[in-house]
Amino acid sequence: MNAKKVLVVSAHPEPLSLNAVLADFAVGHLRAAGHEVRVSDLYAMKWKATVDADDYDEGSGAGSRLRVMAASQEATLGGRLTPDVAAEQEKVRWADAVVLQFPLWWFSAPAILKGWFDRVFTAGFAYGPAVPPPYSEGVLAGRRALVSVTAGARETSFSDRGIHGEMADVLYPIQHGLFWFTGMAPLPPFAVCGANELSEERFAAVREAYAARLDGLFTDEAVPFRSLVGGDYDHDMRLLPGVEEPGVGGFGLHRRPGPALVPVPGA
Amino acid sequence: MNAKKVLVVSAHPEPLSLNAVLADFAVGHLRAAGHEVRVSDLYAMKWKATVDADDYDEGSGAGSRLRVMAASQEATLGGRLTPDVAAEQEKVRWADAVVLQFPLWWFSAPAILKGWFDRVFTAGFAYGPAVPPPYSEGVLAGRRALVSVTAGARETSFSDRGIHGEMADVLYPIQHGLFWFTGMAPLPPFAVCGANELSEERFAAVREAYAARLDGLFTDEAVPFRSLVGGDYDHDMRLLPGVEEPGVGGFGLHRRPGPALVPVPGA
Repeated sequence: MNAKKVLVVSAHPEPLSLNAVLADFAVGHLRAAGHEVRVSDLYAMKWKATVDADDYDEGSGAGSRLRVMAASQEATLGGRLTPDVAAEQEKVRWADAVVLQFPLWWFSAPAILKGWFDRVFTAGFAYGPAVPPPYSEGVLAGRRALVSVTAGARETSFSDRGIHGEMADVLYPIQHGLFWFTGMAPLPPFAVCGANELSEERFAAVREAYAARLDGLFTDEAVPFRSLVGGDYDHDMRLLPGVEEPGVGGFGLHRRPGPALVPVPGA
Repeated sequence: MNAKKVLVVSAHPEPLSLNAVLADFAVGHLRAAGHEVRVSDLYAMKWKATVDADDYDEGSGAGSRLRVMAASQEATLGGRLTPDVAAEQEKVRWADAVVLQFPLWWFSAPAILKGWFDRVFTAGFAYGPAVPPPYSEGVLAGRRALVSVTAGARETSFSDRGIHGEMADVLYPIQHGLFWFTGMAPLPPFAVCGANELSEERFAAVREAYAARLDGLFTDEAVPFRSLVGGDYDHDMRLLPGVEEPGVGGFGLHRRPGPALVPVPGA
């Protein structure tokens, strides 16, 4: 196997949690396969979650109005980011793949991880300035991304007709909005549902399924999101009429007809 | 007009930002209409964004494993929540409606607001313990909720076929996952797109449109999300076959056919 570089980002406050165990498992499994692995354990790092004026103090005059996108772009291009943000950007740039491990809280990432998105993926680093269109042509292209998530609810409630919405759709703001927007190729998410009552037997099955997904990190089919430059969208970034299969709606519009998503381990 | 109680929660680090201006506008407009208004300005409050063991210290023995849902439920039912969380729960319980004002960062709420969801909407307060099914029967039923959001991208890119996904779908984790899950009735979101270049003229139009939405806070049609107890779902929380209109997919499955969403002000 070709040795690659992988960044594992985890976000759970409890070192004995299922998420911590899965993050450790991923790190061990990837290293055993010969990959180089770096870890951002956000709680252990006491990661600062909130974007505020302290992030851009050096670049702006005291008392001036904070315009977040402009300030973050100036700080990025001028090499004046805070050391914690600069270090994470260096890790993302270094990586051939990023793995996120987190519990689904209120149907999205815990605040500390959202704050990693908000603070690390600055204008001038993750997109822009201006020229290349986002999505497939994004500046982080060439990298792969895998979300590994735990959820208390049952798998059926996250299935295609499940009331919480399909897991791939629930994670769309991360899969499509963060990863694909910046050019990274997201794999179908790996989700452990019913995570509050995990028997030894099911835990063994989860580990095995996760190992298979990690083994496919650089070879599995990525989610076939559409490209802005592929001729599917008009100049207003709207999908052209009639390019989707009949009956497809919602976020499914933005995936090309492709292979079925990898099923999650049964709850 | 019937005087009601409204909680406005805002999340922007800059007091001169468009979001701060819109939050102030909402407060003023609602008060002028006779409503009682309380405000949670999360940055001004230096709201703690991350869930961690400090949230539950009193309830758990030192060194014990933190199980977030169980610990938060115990602290809630035992009256041992931290004062900041208890105060926000009291505001939500007090309110007839909650208005959220925030910039869309990476297609979801800023970390500080996500941390308000994560820390305030505990087990035992926002859902459970166990008995009533979530969604329409949730324990916060009777309240209304309005998301007011700003986004840099153009309106077309958040339209029904826009590449970022339809705004109502992008906000589904909040609209359906937080509000509707806990029993609150969410209104269609109010979104200001193209928010980085807002002319005086467009700002005036935005204010007018926002005023109309605030005027309809207690009378506009809520998003017609389906109910778990209405016979639309099976026991595995999957939507029954054939109940949707032909061609509907994605999160749209979980809305009954109903009135068109209120359009956002043109970008």
